[in-house]
Amino acid sequence: MFFASDNSGPVHPNVLAKLAEANQGYQMAYGADTMMDEVRARIRGIFEAPNAAVYLVATGTAANSLALATLSNPWETIFCSPVAHIHEDECNAPEFYSGAKLTLVPGGDKMAPDALRDSILGEETRGVHGPQRGPVSITQVTERGSVYSLEELQALCAVAKEFELPVHLDGARFSNALVALNCSPAEMTWKAGVDALSFGGTKNGLLGVEAVVFFDESKAWEFELRRKRGAHLFSKHRYLSAQMAAYLDGDLWLKLARRANANAARLADGLREKGAEFLHEPQANMIFASFPRSQHKHLHEAGALYHLWGATLDGEDESELLACRLVCDWSIGAEDIDRFLNLL
Amino acid sequence: MFFASDNSGPVHPNVLAKLAEANQGYQMAYGADTMMDEVRARIRGIFEAPNAAVYLVATGTAANSLALATLSNPWETIFCSPVAHIHEDECNAPEFYSGAKLTLVPGGDKMAPDALRDSILGEETRGVHGPQRGPVSITQVTERGSVYSLEELQALCAVAKEFELPVHLDGARFSNALVALNCSPAEMTWKAGVDALSFGGTKNGLLGVEAVVFFDESKAWEFELRRKRGAHLFSKHRYLSAQMAAYLDGDLWLKLARRANANAARLADGLREKGAEFLHEPQANMIFASFPRSQHKHLHEAGALYHLWGATLDGEDESELLACRLVCDWSIGAEDIDRFLNLL
Amino acid sequence: MFFASDNSGPVHPNVLAKLAEANQGYQMAYGADTMMDEVRARIRGIFEAPNAAVYLVATGTAANSLALATLSNPWETIFCSPVAHIHEDECNAPEFYSGAKLTLVPGGDKMAPDALRDSILGEETRGVHGPQRGPVSITQVTERGSVYSLEELQALCAVAKEFELPVHLDGARFSNALVALNCSPAEMTWKAGVDALSFGGTKNGLLGVEAVVFFDESKAWEFELRRKRGAHLFSKHRYLSAQMAAYLDGDLWLKLARRANANAARLADGLREKGAEFLHEPQANMIFASFPRSQHKHLHEAGALYHLWGATLDGEDESELLACRLVCDWSIGAEDIDRFLNLL
Amino acid sequence: MFFASDNSGPVHPNVLAKLAEANQGYQMAYGADTMMDEVRARIRGIFEAPNAAVYLVATGTAANSLALATLSNPWETIFCSPVAHIHEDECNAPEFYSGAKLTLVPGGDKMAPDALRDSILGEETRGVHGPQRGPVSITQVTERGSVYSLEELQALCAVAKEFELPVHLDGARFSNALVALNCSPAEMTWKAGVDALSFGGTKNGLLGVEAVVFFDESKAWEFELRRKRGAHLFSKHRYLSAQMAAYLDGDLWLKLARRANANAARLADGLREKGAEFLHEPQANMIFASFPRSQHKHLHEAGALYHLWGATLDGEDESELLACRLVCDWSIGAEDIDRFLNLL
Repeated sequence: MFFASDNSGPVHPNVLAKLAEANQGYQMAYGADTMMDEVRARIRGIFEAPNAAVYLVATGTAANSLALATLSNPWETIFCSPVAHIHEDECNAPEFYSGAKLTLVPGGDKMAPDALRDSILGEETRGVHGPQRGPVSITQVTERGSVYSLEELQALCAVAKEFELPVHLDGARFSNALVALNCSPAEMTWKAGVDALSFGGTKNGLLGVEAVVFFDESKAWEFELRRKRGAHLFSKHRYLSAQMAAYLDGDLWLKLARRANANAARLADGLREKGAEFLHEPQANMIFASFPRSQHKHLHEAGALYHLWGATLDGEDESELLACRLVCDWSIGAEDIDRFLNLL
Repeated sequence: MFFASDNSGPVHPNVLAKLAEANQGYQMAYGADTMMDEVRARIRGIFEAPNAAVYLVATGTAANSLALATLSNPWETIFCSPVAHIHEDECNAPEFYSGAKLTLVPGGDKMAPDALRDSILGEETRGVHGPQRGPVSITQVTERGSVYSLEELQALCAVAKEFELPVHLDGARFSNALVALNCSPAEMTWKAGVDALSFGGTKNGLLGVEAVVFFDESKAWEFELRRKRGAHLFSKHRYLSAQMAAYLDGDLWLKLARRANANAARLADGLREKGAEFLHEPQANMIFASFPRSQHKHLHEAGALYHLWGATLDGEDESELLACRLVCDWSIGAEDIDRFLNLL
Repeated sequence: MFFASDNSGPVHPNVLAKLAEANQGYQMAYGADTMMDEVRARIRGIFEAPNAAVYLVATGTAANSLALATLSNPWETIFCSPVAHIHEDECNAPEFYSGAKLTLVPGGDKMAPDALRDSILGEETRGVHGPQRGPVSITQVTERGSVYSLEELQALCAVAKEFELPVHLDGARFSNALVALNCSPAEMTWKAGVDALSFGGTKNGLLGVEAVVFFDESKAWEFELRRKRGAHLFSKHRYLSAQMAAYLDGDLWLKLARRANANAARLADGLREKGAEFLHEPQANMIFASFPRSQHKHLHEAGALYHLWGATLDGEDESELLACRLVCDWSIGAEDIDRFLNLL
Repeated sequence: MFFASDNSGPVHPNVLAKLAEANQGYQMAYGADTMMDEVRARIRGIFEAPNAAVYLVATGTAANSLALATLSNPWETIFCSPVAHIHEDECNAPEFYSGAKLTLVPGGDKMAPDALRDSILGEETRGVHGPQRGPVSITQVTERGSVYSLEELQALCAVAKEFELPVHLDGARFSNALVALNCSPAEMTWKAGVDALSFGGTKNGLLGVEAVVFFDESKAWEFELRRKRGAHLFSKHRYLSAQMAAYLDGDLWLKLARRANANAARLADGLREKGAEFLHEPQANMIFASFPRSQHKHLHEAGALYHLWGATLDGEDESELLACRLVCDWSIGAEDIDRFLNLL
């Protein structure tokens, strides 16, 4: 009963098999491996973007930080949600790489176009004194488990384009969002107005690989230099390529995301039946739900692992509703979900 | 006949097996996996350093840059060889992470204690105007394939200690040096005066793992924050732990290093017999040798892969001696070496 | 009728006279001038802080950025008001110098102790993932012309001390606040819990000098190195010393601040009589007031210079109340104020 | 008898008079003062560069660091002399501002074109691994008192242009070089191939002002943002403008430089007569000379102030030749020089 995170489960066996397959003979280092050529071509194909620049790094924070640094200047500000991963969970890495400041667009988890426009307008009244307007970073799936609709993405990108600002999509859970929206990768990125994408694999069955995709390739060489200078260029790059190749083979990435989302749906349905309340309707593989302290205690004692959200088990009032975050990855079995629900 | 680099060969099968072993069930992320506890304990044991702080990162540049940043301040200078990897091959990563300047100690590949002392003395005549003295970084095996003797290491560290400067050892090829010197890990590090070590695994049979070891643990928390801020903390950290665990199991790291060094010795012996000249006597797994252009051409045509060193195949004079770098990893077979030698 | 800023008026004649006095013969450069010894001793005396480290720089942004960089680490967060000068008007300089992130304490112009505590508490729930808690920066006079009472300052510092965080006071208008509170410099700084102070002179009659005062001198050498590395150490430092010496001579700094505040009080009284509304009661030398568009137009046509605040002269509705900022420096004459008021 | 530095003498009285003249009424802050318009126009005229971008900062280190940061990227290397001020005397400020690495062109004080070409060639054999080639920075007058001839400057710039690298001229003593060469400012800068200039005033009679001149104005806005972010934009900018205006009025800058050079020539002539040896023939306002320890002691006891160069007064051998640096500014009187010479 492990619902703590989607970075704690095992990797899919196909990925290990692909590592073994890649482990034959000699390969040029630093991204010049033959498997990377294949991966690049396939990502370009999947995104209908024949000229896209495609790179692999090993952590989501590296993907976000390097992409944002490439899109921005150190005297600029990056617009994002107040709960964006780049703001809350990367220990100043985006600032370290870019030199830019993060401007938190007021509102909730999801940025609203009007709030974004107001934030951007607010950053250009002081000439050289204030930071200049820089990229907009959108998180899809959001950190609270919501999924922007295509219309919402388009509207946010349109605001950015009003001001000629580039758009970055933090897609650590890109696959989960894609299968939730049932749209094409192109629709969820460049067709909506996204310029650079962190295309996550780590949370969806890989050991540790994220692709960074620039739909405009003009920044490609700068990105390569930034990646090396950030110590994120792997010498034995073939093992990153192999993970991504396994991910794309036979649409494994989509299958795993569908499984994770289905797991979350099964869990959400059960929670609903048990009377739990939701922060908002679960859409991908994360659930933010509230139910009584007594039930949390019961689950906890039975070994269920997940994070309470702004709450603590300690407390007298057994009926108090405590919020929690429940995350499902691809590997969770139905029996685990049902056992969890039965304990409620 | 692949002698281009020790980062181009396959990983040892035990490493893949350990990844599979680690791929069971759920593990806490970000270094809290149980295998890391085991790895930490074993590295402390191997180094006879029960309180050492031990961390894993995925690239050698990350290990070096984060270790040096932790040992230095941005207004300082890091003393190193003019051919140090941190100077020549990391695209300003050490400067990016530390903010410090690199001061190149005049001389060849190996730093000499007197030259180091002169460099250090030269950096403290200008008060606040010049950068302040910071750490000394030593590369073992050097970038030209030499190995510092224990006495040499001790002498360099003693100079650093005269000025109360910390010492970093770039041990991307630590294992190759250790088996060449036939000494203990403690002797080659803290007993000689080393404060922080980049303990390489990638060039010696792993996919991509280096340990950073601080023999004084007071900098441990700072390092953890720097690692995260640098985007080098892996969420699915267990797959780094597993690689290092496999490396240490049954002294695989020593066995692979011995094999690589033996390969290089076999190759060097053959080259010597064929009349090649050496930049200096090969000691570990790298050879810098010179032989006639005609022989290089012959090898090249037969498919041998290696780097010419400050030279080019193009040229009229068939008898001109051209230098080259030949690197052996653990995986090269005797037959490949012999075939290479026969082609000479 | 110049009420646009207190950095646009002339310097006091005593300051120019002191520059001439300092312009005799040779002086050691880079802060070793004899006048600096005198300035240091006098600032220590004025602040009843015999061991304080005292430095001069030429801009307020340099004073703030260097002080905050000295108090923080690049993986930390600096707590400040959403309208702090360091956030809005320094083009990422504090981030550039410190590497830290600014965390905006929710609320208005003035930070409230509870809001500060909540912000600090909010920054320590994610271990190595989020930035760590760093210094608290308080602006006195605030950017909206308010003055924290001693009790308010003490309460904010007490919150910082609960978490062992250092406190920086941005005192670009320190003198204006001091004479408004009619307290001692020690009471408004270290006795309240302030660790480092930007002690402004530029906005109060100097050409361009701010002192940075560390009440704990342990950070002194680090500050000196940061100042030099930031290119803020003046070779002909005597001309900074001379400005500060003139500022302190005969309490010129207090006299000029009293004059500026009195100018603002005269202006505020007149505005009140004319029916203007205030954002809050003016306390120092800045007024945020609202009155009808028609009056603004009238003033504008008569040559009055000041900034509208989130408003524009363009508009149909002549009776609409438009906010503006009116700043008085020491040099404004009563006749200018009265002329302005008569135009209303 | 003060020959320690040209940053220790008084400023010219005209400069103080201009400060008083500028101290009338109100002026827009941050560089929008009317005197700056005049200064910009005059510098453009003097340099025959009608579109040049012209900015003022207060320290030479700021001028150099900001100019180089504007010309480079953080993954590049800046080529300079091993004794360049930017390398030896700015406490890592150029690295802090630019993120780039300094590459020291082997050789002496003056860079030689062939050595520069070799250094540049040496930086492009490692693809993404090594830093990329960035700007060339030339110091005129050099730190050892030499002056590059126009032909030498042209040859160095030509090498830079072979590789399409921008050229920065550190002209802290630009005026002294100009009058030594008796050429035009345009000849010594853009006509020779210089792209950006630090045009020094501080060492030649001002309190603290350096102009940064970009002959290609495309980098102007970036420079403005970098200046602000570096905390080097003065609010009361008119007092920087006034200094530069006084400097240009009636060619004061040239007159002061001629006086300083003449002082040095008088001193050098006397030293030659007394048998002193020169490191090289003095050309501007700095002399590097050697004479016996006994004479140094005698001068020292009589109160002469100057720096020994890699030597110390302590020592038994009275006849040992000790090197020293003697710098003349505009303000030194003939009687002081003669008194110094008589003491020899």
